[in-house]
Amino acid sequence: MATSLKILSSQKSFSCHIHRFSHVSTSLSNLTATFSLIVPPTPNSNLLYFLSGLTCTDLNFIQKAHATPYCLKYNIAIVVPDTSPRGAGAPREDDSYDFGTGAGFWLNATENGFQAYRMEDYLIKELPGVVEEAVKMVGASVNVGRRGVLGHSMGGMGALNMMLRHEGFFTSVSAFSPISNPSAVPWGKKCLTGYLGTDEKLWHDFDPCMLLRKRGRPISSRILVDVGSDDEFEQQLRVQELKAACDEVGQQLQLNVAEGYDHSYFFVQTFLEKHIRFHSEQLGTQK
Amino acid sequence: MATSLKILSSQKSFSCHIHRFSHVSTSLSNLTATFSLIVPPTPNSNLLYFLSGLTCTDLNFIQKAHATPYCLKYNIAIVVPDTSPRGAGAPREDDSYDFGTGAGFWLNATENGFQAYRMEDYLIKELPGVVEEAVKMVGASVNVGRRGVLGHSMGGMGALNMMLRHEGFFTSVSAFSPISNPSAVPWGKKCLTGYLGTDEKLWHDFDPCMLLRKRGRPISSRILVDVGSDDEFEQQLRVQELKAACDEVGQQLQLNVAEGYDHSYFFVQTFLEKHIRFHSEQLGTQK
Repeated sequence: MATSLKILSSQKSFSCHIHRFSHVSTSLSNLTATFSLIVPPTPNSNLLYFLSGLTCTDLNFIQKAHATPYCLKYNIAIVVPDTSPRGAGAPREDDSYDFGTGAGFWLNATENGFQAYRMEDYLIKELPGVVEEAVKMVGASVNVGRRGVLGHSMGGMGALNMMLRHEGFFTSVSAFSPISNPSAVPWGKKCLTGYLGTDEKLWHDFDPCMLLRKRGRPISSRILVDVGSDDEFEQQLRVQELKAACDEVGQQLQLNVAEGYDHSYFFVQTFLEKHIRFHSEQLGTQK
Repeated sequence: MATSLKILSSQKSFSCHIHRFSHVSTSLSNLTATFSLIVPPTPNSNLLYFLSGLTCTDLNFIQKAHATPYCLKYNIAIVVPDTSPRGAGAPREDDSYDFGTGAGFWLNATENGFQAYRMEDYLIKELPGVVEEAVKMVGASVNVGRRGVLGHSMGGMGALNMMLRHEGFFTSVSAFSPISNPSAVPWGKKCLTGYLGTDEKLWHDFDPCMLLRKRGRPISSRILVDVGSDDEFEQQLRVQELKAACDEVGQQLQLNVAEGYDHSYFFVQTFLEKHIRFHSEQLGTQK
């Protein structure tokens, strides 16, 4: 599997190595996919999956989130996939920033022409094996079988959805500024219609608030969410609706509104250590 | 003066604010110039000037160096100018990455057609007043009259040159991966010829090694330099020649070769706290 895996670059930061890989992805119609992997120098690292937001590749987090000092401090490896297939040629995929390329929405599309848009399969079924191969390729020591997931904006939504849809696959979940109730906001309606069609009931399977309510009971771990009080996309996020849904089902949610921060990676970088520590505690620190 | 000053954006990171400004620059033929300014939340911050390398604007450092946690910790403000005039229309200015736009080389050009290329005047004569106005505009408290200077690559050269050419203007100097002996390397020869002409003697006034040897005695402070052992531009830097020049004149140089690091901001970010601490000690920490 994934014999197409290639290292594109390896760079050192805070004693960690940041590797970038490409491979031919079977989930994504055999298109070439890229991902980045941060590995600390210490053995038995725990592994986080970071899911990025609209317009991002794997590089936004790598260049802007400043994760390496915390990867070193908490012995955490982080894998960062791209946010959509590239070069799929799907309808309208390059017409806007919030649909298609760079906006895969962490789901498997069902609409005609979007057969390459299977980011959920990619993430859950394909990437774990590829990461295992990548870890071996660079001679790192990472506990690939026990995973935390965090994300930002669209990726925060993805992290919550993946935690709720694939019980046991991830051990811990957190989010920065997640699109919490996509069925009810423009970003969500556009992508959910474009990928899944107009039947709104189908959208609910990719809406964290709806998934929580459908489940009707808490997941096995608490959820950590940070959002800036000056988030310019507040109306697209509806984080208070996530709080309401958590309260309804007895889900423990640690929600922090950070005074004066916006939606950008300047906000993410400020609170990243808290999230990495949160996952590290739940995954079990192995030094 | 500088009544054209405008705030383009303000974002919060690690309790600091990152402001971006534009203004009409008299030094740069009345072209519009941009710069960024990080200010910590505490009063009486010391001030560093960060000079960037080839191809950079003010944003590369801001997005990739992750300075804000250290600005907060050491009560340091950092101003980051652009690296060249923009839209000057000078000969060949957009033909290559290492000459013209994005490659001002921190000097005043004398060749025909380059009258807008006066980055030394901009930095020493114009920017300090503009920064003072910017600090007032955002209601910050910064000791603008006492300055440290650091830079990366072309900007590391600029930092050393400015320290040597303008005694007393800067109190402390340090550099990441500086072009140390530009007269002797392709990057330097191309820019020095293009901006100053073919008389090599004129180049020596913008060559840290040559300036040190011409001076013949140390400056009032020690110099801190970090460079990666895997720097892909090692041949363009000649950092060992800087060490030789310092040894010849009795200049104290703290030169560190960091094992396994390259030329990128992943290297800069790893050692930035050390440089900020170095300047903070010499500028006098004011909490």
